[in-house]
Amino acid sequence: MEILVINPNATVSMTEKIVESARRVAGQGTTIIAATGQPPAPASIQGHHDEAMAVPGLLARLRQAEADGVDGVVVACFDDPGIGACREVFSGPVLGICEAATKAATMLSTSFSVVTTLPRSVPIIEQLIHGYGLSHQCRRVRSAEIAVLALEEEGSGAREKVRNEILRAVEEDRCEAVVLGCAGMADLTAWLTEETGVPVIDGVTVATRMVEALIGCGLKTSKVGAYAPPIET
Amino acid sequence: MEILVINPNATVSMTEKIVESARRVAGQGTTIIAATGQPPAPASIQGHHDEAMAVPGLLARLRQAEADGVDGVVVACFDDPGIGACREVFSGPVLGICEAATKAATMLSTSFSVVTTLPRSVPIIEQLIHGYGLSHQCRRVRSAEIAVLALEEEGSGAREKVRNEILRAVEEDRCEAVVLGCAGMADLTAWLTEETGVPVIDGVTVATRMVEALIGCGLKTSKVGAYAPPIET
Amino acid sequence: MEILVINPNATVSMTEKIVESARRVAGQGTTIIAATGQPPAPASIQGHHDEAMAVPGLLARLRQAEADGVDGVVVACFDDPGIGACREVFSGPVLGICEAATKAATMLSTSFSVVTTLPRSVPIIEQLIHGYGLSHQCRRVRSAEIAVLALEEEGSGAREKVRNEILRAVEEDRCEAVVLGCAGMADLTAWLTEETGVPVIDGVTVATRMVEALIGCGLKTSKVGAYAPPIET
Amino acid sequence: MEILVINPNATVSMTEKIVESARRVAGQGTTIIAATGQPPAPASIQGHHDEAMAVPGLLARLRQAEADGVDGVVVACFDDPGIGACREVFSGPVLGICEAATKAATMLSTSFSVVTTLPRSVPIIEQLIHGYGLSHQCRRVRSAEIAVLALEEEGSGAREKVRNEILRAVEEDRCEAVVLGCAGMADLTAWLTEETGVPVIDGVTVATRMVEALIGCGLKTSKVGAYAPPIET
Amino acid sequence: MEILVINPNATVSMTEKIVESARRVAGQGTTIIAATGQPPAPASIQGHHDEAMAVPGLLARLRQAEADGVDGVVVACFDDPGIGACREVFSGPVLGICEAATKAATMLSTSFSVVTTLPRSVPIIEQLIHGYGLSHQCRRVRSAEIAVLALEEEGSGAREKVRNEILRAVEEDRCEAVVLGCAGMADLTAWLTEETGVPVIDGVTVATRMVEALIGCGLKTSKVGAYAPPIET
Amino acid sequence: MEILVINPNATVSMTEKIVESARRVAGQGTTIIAATGQPPAPASIQGHHDEAMAVPGLLARLRQAEADGVDGVVVACFDDPGIGACREVFSGPVLGICEAATKAATMLSTSFSVVTTLPRSVPIIEQLIHGYGLSHQCRRVRSAEIAVLALEEEGSGAREKVRNEILRAVEEDRCEAVVLGCAGMADLTAWLTEETGVPVIDGVTVATRMVEALIGCGLKTSKVGAYAPPIET
Repeated sequence: MEILVINPNATVSMTEKIVESARRVAGQGTTIIAATGQPPAPASIQGHHDEAMAVPGLLARLRQAEADGVDGVVVACFDDPGIGACREVFSGPVLGICEAATKAATMLSTSFSVVTTLPRSVPIIEQLIHGYGLSHQCRRVRSAEIAVLALEEEGSGAREKVRNEILRAVEEDRCEAVVLGCAGMADLTAWLTEETGVPVIDGVTVATRMVEALIGCGLKTSKVGAYAPPIET
Repeated sequence: MEILVINPNATVSMTEKIVESARRVAGQGTTIIAATGQPPAPASIQGHHDEAMAVPGLLARLRQAEADGVDGVVVACFDDPGIGACREVFSGPVLGICEAATKAATMLSTSFSVVTTLPRSVPIIEQLIHGYGLSHQCRRVRSAEIAVLALEEEGSGAREKVRNEILRAVEEDRCEAVVLGCAGMADLTAWLTEETGVPVIDGVTVATRMVEALIGCGLKTSKVGAYAPPIET
Repeated sequence: MEILVINPNATVSMTEKIVESARRVAGQGTTIIAATGQPPAPASIQGHHDEAMAVPGLLARLRQAEADGVDGVVVACFDDPGIGACREVFSGPVLGICEAATKAATMLSTSFSVVTTLPRSVPIIEQLIHGYGLSHQCRRVRSAEIAVLALEEEGSGAREKVRNEILRAVEEDRCEAVVLGCAGMADLTAWLTEETGVPVIDGVTVATRMVEALIGCGLKTSKVGAYAPPIET
Repeated sequence: MEILVINPNATVSMTEKIVESARRVAGQGTTIIAATGQPPAPASIQGHHDEAMAVPGLLARLRQAEADGVDGVVVACFDDPGIGACREVFSGPVLGICEAATKAATMLSTSFSVVTTLPRSVPIIEQLIHGYGLSHQCRRVRSAEIAVLALEEEGSGAREKVRNEILRAVEEDRCEAVVLGCAGMADLTAWLTEETGVPVIDGVTVATRMVEALIGCGLKTSKVGAYAPPIET
Repeated sequence: MEILVINPNATVSMTEKIVESARRVAGQGTTIIAATGQPPAPASIQGHHDEAMAVPGLLARLRQAEADGVDGVVVACFDDPGIGACREVFSGPVLGICEAATKAATMLSTSFSVVTTLPRSVPIIEQLIHGYGLSHQCRRVRSAEIAVLALEEEGSGAREKVRNEILRAVEEDRCEAVVLGCAGMADLTAWLTEETGVPVIDGVTVATRMVEALIGCGLKTSKVGAYAPPIET
Repeated sequence: MEILVINPNATVSMTEKIVESARRVAGQGTTIIAATGQPPAPASIQGHHDEAMAVPGLLARLRQAEADGVDGVVVACFDDPGIGACREVFSGPVLGICEAATKAATMLSTSFSVVTTLPRSVPIIEQLIHGYGLSHQCRRVRSAEIAVLALEEEGSGAREKVRNEILRAVEEDRCEAVVLGCAGMADLTAWLTEETGVPVIDGVTVATRMVEALIGCGLKTSKVGAYAPPIET
């Protein structure tokens, strides 16, 4: 099967890291197709405006994937931008990494906290989790106070800040698992799990395998109701 | 004060109707500025995909309004597309018509139903209302099973379908008020109120006056947190 | 249009302050009518008992306003006492200042905290906010630990305590806006906004303008259901 | 122990029926003290206005009971009027019959419906149940479309309407128990249980026994926080 | 009437303490029947596994009680293990002590915290409270970090830890009442109330009196729906 | 990897059907191990009592699987019996089929209905869905009014009843997907999807692939908090 893993922002180095994570976990017989946002998609998605600028390009890429017969899609940005629209233009399963990771967290623990990059992303993620119905299992959404692209820079100290915030989450929030709140953290999962002793859940890998799972069960996006194809006017 | 009332879709006749409604209710000393979406914004917004295509143009128009010193914005589409992003790029109050109308409904009644156009918009509106925290006061979101642009056509029977659905809502849902779930219904409010005997609430007029109210109190969008200006990267 | 702004407690100096705030923001052509509670209404409303003692007088005053053809009513006490009953006896819009201010806060920010006077008012306000469906956007209801009437006394230090509690709210609650939880704080809004750097929202002014907005749209309290006129027995 | 069972409305025949029900179930050693509302309390409580008019008299009677050393209070009106205020002026447990009956229903079934008198009481009861956190277990609040005082009249057909509405609730709502939504139905419980085959729960009897239970455990209303005695000003 | 108070774990000394508490508060004419879990029920119930091992024995004992004509049952473990199953095999009211105590707390205060033994019980209790719909009134579930059986040992310091945790709850959570989160704390209620100055609510005594109350009103478990007797296959 | 798919009831023919479904979808390199409940587990699980009788055997089998180094577990009963306890005794991921199927449904649609066997299972499933936080996306839990074992009998008409109930769900509930509410329906998925035109989601296959997905990402059950191993006493 073929799964498109799309990084909606325009930073190729982030796509490479994301896709490497997806390929590492993908099952036998799964081909991961990589895609990166094109301008006007911003270099990183830090807020609603950035999401909005990235979504039309995301939809164009999904229309192409639909025409190519791709089986499923992972949208690799923790704000889950444009997921509803993506589900309208694509037949197979489409998953955002926030939805995948937080639902996985509730399968492995009774409560989780999220550690994201910038403070401004905190309320966006809280709203997503409210929409998914998981607020009662989410202890807190935390920010490590780093810019998204700092994760791409050697020596920025970003990794250590993420680790320290996870340790604070375990201590202060009494959470049982931690969800990484940014696609750019996908390569840190193993190291963070070792350093912190709690399940650390990365959305890129989980979403890739969950999309595989849905495809493997023969399931597709419902075309009855909200996710029917757009009406041409 | 100056308020931009923007119709995010590309149908000018709908903008005219919307702006006429806004001007009719605006207070003395308020100037209503009209704007219409430009392609790739679709002719009508019927689903998430259509929203996504309309939002970048909406944001460009709001940046212009911000530069022009406009005081507030009404986004005249009942899906409340891109409101978070709009609040990031604009200093004054920004209101979508779903948020304005449903919050007004709860100030006038203990429960309301919504009557929108197409069935596919029903779950979108339900999700908005869940996000606004008003699900316990919303009896049901109903569709009159008409296309958005049918409201623009003489003799399409669309008005009668809306009226009949309102009457069914009052009868079956035991609601105390009805919210019109489409900007294109703004001109029907008075007629529908007369025909049905319940408060019929149109988002365009209510949002216009509520933005005026917030401006009049000297209030602006919070720039601490989620609605801070976009970060340039 | 004529709007009755009623202070349900019996302290005339508080009414004067409230009405001055209302008049400052009211639109052109709006007349603000002032009213003060009469004993047995207490000098300040600090708890459910005090509310209960104030409501019959409030209703009598609203019946008078209804007979006089007044267009709308603001009940200027943050406990929103007797709002349901007021809506039964009055045709036009009736708003309490807690409902108005908290709904306004959600139009300008993704989360807010409330700063009220006494600790005993905290659970009352929490219950109101739960009823309005806004708990998921309310970070915390806080008390500045001052008596209501201390706000009327020069040199009581009450203003400074309110400011300090707002600063704590911003720091500890990560809220994006602050709602003033007492009608007696209406005159402090501008000063507090300057001192704290977040939108500080006062219910008296917001409720006045929102009632104006609803009247301006031709909307009235629904008389179908809960808010039908009392049945004479 | 002594329990005051107070009918907040001014209809003595209803008090007699209520108190008879309370006395029938009260434990050995419990004395039931009866009280009836005095004008301006209305003859029946049909809406928020009626509640508001009854509460000051209710509070005066509770202050007397407090001075007399009464151990607990049942407020025998299904709108639970003034309960917060009552808890401020009284030391022992105070229960409204809606709270008692709906919480009892959740101890005996997984879901219940309520059958009340007039349609206008439906949203009031829905709001109470939302506040108590039981909405997810309440299938529906229904009205038998009868006036409260019709229950006092021989030959009014009111009893049969209540029975028929219960049968509809069981059939249509798939509820497992039915709560009687009016103190004036207390004498019908046994007959309705027989006629309908589901547990029919009357608030007067349940509240009486639950107040007994709380007193028997040595429990009193918390005086830390919201229910502290009113502050004299 | 006869009420079975069953300690689902296998520690007889705990049963004795529990039953003594139940007998102390039971009304005149009530006989308390004691029962203790038998292996494979564990010595204490500390987690879901322990619950699961205790429930089949609990059900066997309830079937016996049903055959003996017992009138009601208290399951004296704060995890409320197997309550749904118990209600299927028994005709009279069945109450767990978490449900009884938390519902009682909401009759006496606007908010409560729970103090339990081990940290691992905290999420279990949070899930129960979410199911009962009381999360909005529960400030926090806290652990005193003691093993259940430490409460049985003289000189273990367990009592003092419970008291100190209650004092922290009052200080930090701003709760108005405290619920004891373990049947083994039943004998400490009076001492803890004195030491802390807030209502301290023990589930064993409250559940005993509430089951009495339901029986006294002639109420039984609904046999329509979820709690119908098990189907023999 | 090795996944244990356990049918907690004692009917071997049902296990065979379930395991066949699991094997059909499992990825390359996955071995499905089958297990069936042993008495006192009942022949079918129809209510809480039946769950309770099946869980101790389920836990014993999971302890064996843990010792054998099995990687993950699917509990193939739609009541999700004993999942919390299973997670305590097992290191790898453990999923119940209700949790898996309903979470999958929310990845493919905005709303779903469930079609189960007996009416008595309806409230049990509703409670599970409330616990998972998905009530706002679940239109209705429906019963096809068939016994679980009727699904095993040729010519019982059970399949047709399930299909007809799905068609009613689509028509009456306006749901976008349907979840099959019984492990015994796993073999009907393809036929039902064809007959009804909506995504029909079976928990057995979805849970198998989701457990595979979690294992594939290196994720295990959190052992910090509620799911720590049972404490030996």
